[in-house]
Amino acid sequence: MLTPNRSLQALLFATGAYALFPDCTNGPLKNETICNASASPIDRAKSLVALYTLEEKINATSSGSPGVARLGIPPYQWWNEGLHGIAGPYTNFSTQGEYSYSTSFPQPILMGAAFDDALITEVAKVISTEARAFNNANRTGLDFWTPNINPFRDPRWGRGQETPGEDSYHLSSYVQALIHGLQGDATDPYKRVVATCKHYVGYDIEDWNGNLRYQNDVQISQQDLVEYYLVPFQACVNANVGAFMCSYNAVNGVPTCADPYLLQTVLREHWGWTNEEQWVTSDCDAVQNIFLPHEWSATREQAVADSLIAGTDIDCGTYMQEHLPGAFAQGLVNETVIDQALIRQYSSLVRLGWFDSAESQPYRQLGWNTVATNASQALARKAAAEGIVLLKNDGVLPLSLDSSISLGLFGDWANATTQLLGNYAGVGTYLHSPLYAAQQLNVTINYAGGNPGGQGDPTTNGWSSIKPAIVTSDVLMYIGGIDNSAEEEGHDRTSLQWTGAQLDIIGQLADTGKPTIVVVMGGGQIDSSILANNPNVSAILWAGYPGQDGGSAIMDIITGKSAPAGRLPQTQYPSNYISQVPMTDMALRPGKNNPGRTYKWYNGTAVYEFGFGMHYTNFSANITSQLQQSYTISDLVSSCNATGGFLERCPFTSVEIDVSNTGTTTSDYVTLGYIAGTFGPAPYPKSSLVAYTRIFNIAGGASDTATLNLTLASLARVDEMGNKVLYPGDYSLMIDNGPLASVNFTLKGQQAVLDVWPQPPANRTGKGVSGFEGYFVAGFGSEQEVV
Amino acid sequence: MLTPNRSLQALLFATGAYALFPDCTNGPLKNETICNASASPIDRAKSLVALYTLEEKINATSSGSPGVARLGIPPYQWWNEGLHGIAGPYTNFSTQGEYSYSTSFPQPILMGAAFDDALITEVAKVISTEARAFNNANRTGLDFWTPNINPFRDPRWGRGQETPGEDSYHLSSYVQALIHGLQGDATDPYKRVVATCKHYVGYDIEDWNGNLRYQNDVQISQQDLVEYYLVPFQACVNANVGAFMCSYNAVNGVPTCADPYLLQTVLREHWGWTNEEQWVTSDCDAVQNIFLPHEWSATREQAVADSLIAGTDIDCGTYMQEHLPGAFAQGLVNETVIDQALIRQYSSLVRLGWFDSAESQPYRQLGWNTVATNASQALARKAAAEGIVLLKNDGVLPLSLDSSISLGLFGDWANATTQLLGNYAGVGTYLHSPLYAAQQLNVTINYAGGNPGGQGDPTTNGWSSIKPAIVTSDVLMYIGGIDNSAEEEGHDRTSLQWTGAQLDIIGQLADTGKPTIVVVMGGGQIDSSILANNPNVSAILWAGYPGQDGGSAIMDIITGKSAPAGRLPQTQYPSNYISQVPMTDMALRPGKNNPGRTYKWYNGTAVYEFGFGMHYTNFSANITSQLQQSYTISDLVSSCNATGGFLERCPFTSVEIDVSNTGTTTSDYVTLGYIAGTFGPAPYPKSSLVAYTRIFNIAGGASDTATLNLTLASLARVDEMGNKVLYPGDYSLMIDNGPLASVNFTLKGQQAVLDVWPQPPANRTGKGVSGFEGYFVAGFGSEQEVV
Repeated sequence: MLTPNRSLQALLFATGAYALFPDCTNGPLKNETICNASASPIDRAKSLVALYTLEEKINATSSGSPGVARLGIPPYQWWNEGLHGIAGPYTNFSTQGEYSYSTSFPQPILMGAAFDDALITEVAKVISTEARAFNNANRTGLDFWTPNINPFRDPRWGRGQETPGEDSYHLSSYVQALIHGLQGDATDPYKRVVATCKHYVGYDIEDWNGNLRYQNDVQISQQDLVEYYLVPFQACVNANVGAFMCSYNAVNGVPTCADPYLLQTVLREHWGWTNEEQWVTSDCDAVQNIFLPHEWSATREQAVADSLIAGTDIDCGTYMQEHLPGAFAQGLVNETVIDQALIRQYSSLVRLGWFDSAESQPYRQLGWNTVATNASQALARKAAAEGIVLLKNDGVLPLSLDSSISLGLFGDWANATTQLLGNYAGVGTYLHSPLYAAQQLNVTINYAGGNPGGQGDPTTNGWSSIKPAIVTSDVLMYIGGIDNSAEEEGHDRTSLQWTGAQLDIIGQLADTGKPTIVVVMGGGQIDSSILANNPNVSAILWAGYPGQDGGSAIMDIITGKSAPAGRLPQTQYPSNYISQVPMTDMALRPGKNNPGRTYKWYNGTAVYEFGFGMHYTNFSANITSQLQQSYTISDLVSSCNATGGFLERCPFTSVEIDVSNTGTTTSDYVTLGYIAGTFGPAPYPKSSLVAYTRIFNIAGGASDTATLNLTLASLARVDEMGNKVLYPGDYSLMIDNGPLASVNFTLKGQQAVLDVWPQPPANRTGKGVSGFEGYFVAGFGSEQEVV
Repeated sequence: MLTPNRSLQALLFATGAYALFPDCTNGPLKNETICNASASPIDRAKSLVALYTLEEKINATSSGSPGVARLGIPPYQWWNEGLHGIAGPYTNFSTQGEYSYSTSFPQPILMGAAFDDALITEVAKVISTEARAFNNANRTGLDFWTPNINPFRDPRWGRGQETPGEDSYHLSSYVQALIHGLQGDATDPYKRVVATCKHYVGYDIEDWNGNLRYQNDVQISQQDLVEYYLVPFQACVNANVGAFMCSYNAVNGVPTCADPYLLQTVLREHWGWTNEEQWVTSDCDAVQNIFLPHEWSATREQAVADSLIAGTDIDCGTYMQEHLPGAFAQGLVNETVIDQALIRQYSSLVRLGWFDSAESQPYRQLGWNTVATNASQALARKAAAEGIVLLKNDGVLPLSLDSSISLGLFGDWANATTQLLGNYAGVGTYLHSPLYAAQQLNVTINYAGGNPGGQGDPTTNGWSSIKPAIVTSDVLMYIGGIDNSAEEEGHDRTSLQWTGAQLDIIGQLADTGKPTIVVVMGGGQIDSSILANNPNVSAILWAGYPGQDGGSAIMDIITGKSAPAGRLPQTQYPSNYISQVPMTDMALRPGKNNPGRTYKWYNGTAVYEFGFGMHYTNFSANITSQLQQSYTISDLVSSCNATGGFLERCPFTSVEIDVSNTGTTTSDYVTLGYIAGTFGPAPYPKSSLVAYTRIFNIAGGASDTATLNLTLASLARVDEMGNKVLYPGDYSLMIDNGPLASVNFTLKGQQAVLDVWPQPPANRTGKGVSGFEGYFVAGFGSEQEVV
């Protein structure tokens, strides 16, 4: 039996000195193909792997790869985070001075609300630039396990904050912009960094009622899988993302990291994600979980063999290191499989320039002066302001603040520090709370102090201290909601309600009759109907997790320095939504004990709907492009010059919309294009977002043109087998919620299949997790059994 | 409108100088009755309250009472904690030196497992002694909001660790012993401290699936209420406890702190808890919660009036301070009601000697030398050892450790620090982990280090480091389970399973074939059937939260220095139990979606049942008392000299049991007496604990006599109206699980009501919390809807 030998490397790794580069000039490999910069990445990688012993290969399967000292291959840490700025656990910030901070942008849920793909690319470029600077200082690796692009399906999800929202088209567009910024152009000689689309797939439950992420086996129909859960991941493939992460959960019986159907048939074969430099990592420790608690593989050796054979190339953790020796000894896996995994890994590192001399690489020249620049800091502030959504305004906003105005600040977010960042955050350049930002204005601030009505402190002991601030203020501003104590990794929300203590404080503020502004923080939406219906609550803003300069962005909106144009990237459900549908019910369409999910299918009345967002002005829209009244399906398909064989990517038409600012305040405007209609299999979604674009700085009385590019995918539906189909029927293209404008057209002729979906193997074992039985949860309704 | 004026007092309070005493010798009150030590407590209290203005009275309703400076009444903090040693938030430990620590005993769940009431009194005496010493140093108050005596009804409850277990008789016996130790004898001139029985009543859910403790409205039948939920609280009344705490939740529609039925009709009138010195505090901020989120009272003023009128005498928080002025202005409450509350408060302080000179009071002489004495430290270790339960042993235990033995220590609890204490802990004298304790033995220790397989760290990155310890050890010991990251205030468990990572590690240890001992930590039981069924797992101990010297107690048991005799104070349910019954279903008896609760009613098969516990020897038992074959109910009742009018407290008979140690190891033995039979309303409980006693140090081959005192309550059942009734029928008295001995007898004649239960008023409003509807939770069973 082979035993790992990695003491020296482990030592180097432990000291943080893991970002060393192989020395291809003077090192032991200098004459090998791996060091030949003119050879192809795959040839270079193959030449290296051929030099490895089996033991060395096995050790290299771990995310904490020990390297091979005898060949001059240094340890390499594949696990780096960069969700909204570079972050730990393996990014090493210094305690002071250079490299002690970077730029911390808003959480994706707020950046998603900006509906501005160009912004996302800009942000991602900053992150990848700062990553390179830190890498050059031996403080991080080059592979980033971001983005989290699972759709925010259920409002309870503790990690919904990490995603851009609930809509799969929105996520697809966002993620392509993001990957472009992180990885650079396909024609660049070197990748900026490698992005990793996670968590593939069906991962959006942390711990609901005993359904733990490490052992969940989610049941998803092929229709929902193709129509919703997989959409952003296929977009990642379109964007040529360098890596995927398979998830903790099983899908329809099989843990994803051991599932050749998902990792090979769908991802690599059907979508064509076959570049030699593209690899799959497991979530940390999803490979171990295949053994326990999934109990999918009967032994530890079988678990590592199953996952490696299925197409998991890197094991976050050490389970492969520990148990592949046994798996080889038992003949459960052969060397070709592990070679393939390692060739993918090293091809990727070749494309990052890891083996090439620094001199020829611009990215290797980036230093501390490229981190947290003035421009990056301004971008972080801009990103937050672009995302903030105005939900209610009786005219109090924007505030004209001057020295005669006294502004009261209340709520546990008013003086937020790391709360601003949300989870997966690094060290921001600074943490500018709303209080800090208000103090920069020429206005008298009455900060209530303490934590009155905070989420974590339900007691009133601190309440009396806020009275003076209420009395002496002209305008009252409450900044609260939720934070990572209510929603985080490992912890889903159990309530969509405001806490009673917070509502009580807000109520007391509003009862004064003074202008009262509520800023709702947090990633998941809180049912704010009680505030919406309170005529004494003057305005409501949603500001998510706005990042290092979030307080400034909030005050920019409050004062009108920035005009709000963000849109809700998620439905704000009424609080009883979560008692109507188990989190484990993955179906999108309404059914028994399921009122439907997302704006497409929810059959109740949202408090605030997806896409909602007010402005400081009003807009009208007019579709100026002339669409045909009808299109023949066969013409649409035959005229299509399919991109990479994907008919769905063919253009349908480009639609121009004239957007007019009919008010007086200069403002951005997000143009949302929805398709609705009766075509394809019933039931029909209420509407589907198919395109969006943000246009900027439209002055009062002025107009601008928004262009929405529709493809055949904009019109397609998915059938129960997962096929994408163009159906004859009546279509409406609608601009904005409301809508502000719409145009109807029909598709005629025979339906056409745009994509034939590969079916899962018939012998696929559907293995339920034992111990979980359906049962009736008695709440407070009439159906509760009272003895 | 009155406004609070308490700036000076608030300042004193904030500086921690709140435990000052009134000066009855030279202060402004020296000539008032309050300062007359020979007057009755109620007259003294009345004389003081008569001097207060309404504003001063209102301010005194708060747990942080500001006092009345003009009368020389210092601020007083009613909120002190002492669950298993004095603790924060308002007990002020110094940073070093004197008063920087105290004695931290095991959590009640482990002390309950000792089934040793005398031990509990001893522990409580230490706590009250240390409380007095800290009070004399101005570091804590004299009123302690302990015990938490809600029965541990559902294994998910995050605060079950704070209770002695699931059985209401056990809790009743335990709590009387505890209160005796905390408060002292009824004949003592002064109370040691005041204990507070909480949370009255029906509070045992933190946050289950959106059912938050602040707003839950639990539905409990009168039968279950009297038979189970209220039992320990009536025992508190029997023990003359000084205070009650009403709870966050509502019961059958009414928030308990606003419920005159529970606070007046049941507690004060029916049970006769009418001593002038007995008061009720709200949980923190249960009074606010009556307004929001309960929405029980329509306004804030109504909420404070409702709770004060219902019989809540102290408001933990400031809600009464803030809103009673308005309530008085609106005429919602009158001064007689607030006077009554304050007279109760000050009568209690009189009984504590607060107004009397220090010289005449022994408790006022206690100093630092009475804190954390050698005897107290030894008691903490003994308490833990007495509670530890041996669940499995193939003979490996006790270990004969000597220098030739190499002991491997694994698991995230092996080097536990504050984990040892559980919640509501102060600063222990020290924190002796299992590793520390093992290091004191003459044995080679291989500590695996790190956190392999810890609950919080599911990744395998640290696993490889444990390999050397496995290889080099002769005996492997895994100490893990759960801690306050899985169960705590505000957070119920969502799983009864071991984490996969921990099971994997234990499996790897056991696979070596070396003796493998698992010590299960945490308050709630973890389904350990997989370990029980693994022949390579040699032994299993459950050790709860064993306190400051818990590691030593564990090693005492492991080495045989102490012989295990603890018994499980709770059922170890199979893990799927929690998917069979919603936590909100309060019914004890089996029913739809409810397999029954506690060992009395659970209709499934427990992994380890309530009362289970092995020894290092074997015991036999023989009932030596001669019982009649039958008893006539009318005779039993008529011969009864009812105690305080409570027929149920009349003695039935005293039973002597001869207990023999048939093995060779000296050991304690817990004698459990259960009644079972077919009498009273069906269904019948499987059995009911009615008496227990622990006998000590029975040598191998020796015998001892245990005496169990039965009362009419031991035989009574509760009907659907809540009446306690003696029924004719067949009874069995069984000794121990198994049982080891039993005797049958019958009761003949007409049934007799021992206690007529006062019914709730017919106009009691049952107000459901809006937004919670019954729904079906689909798990992984056949009933899940898959589209």
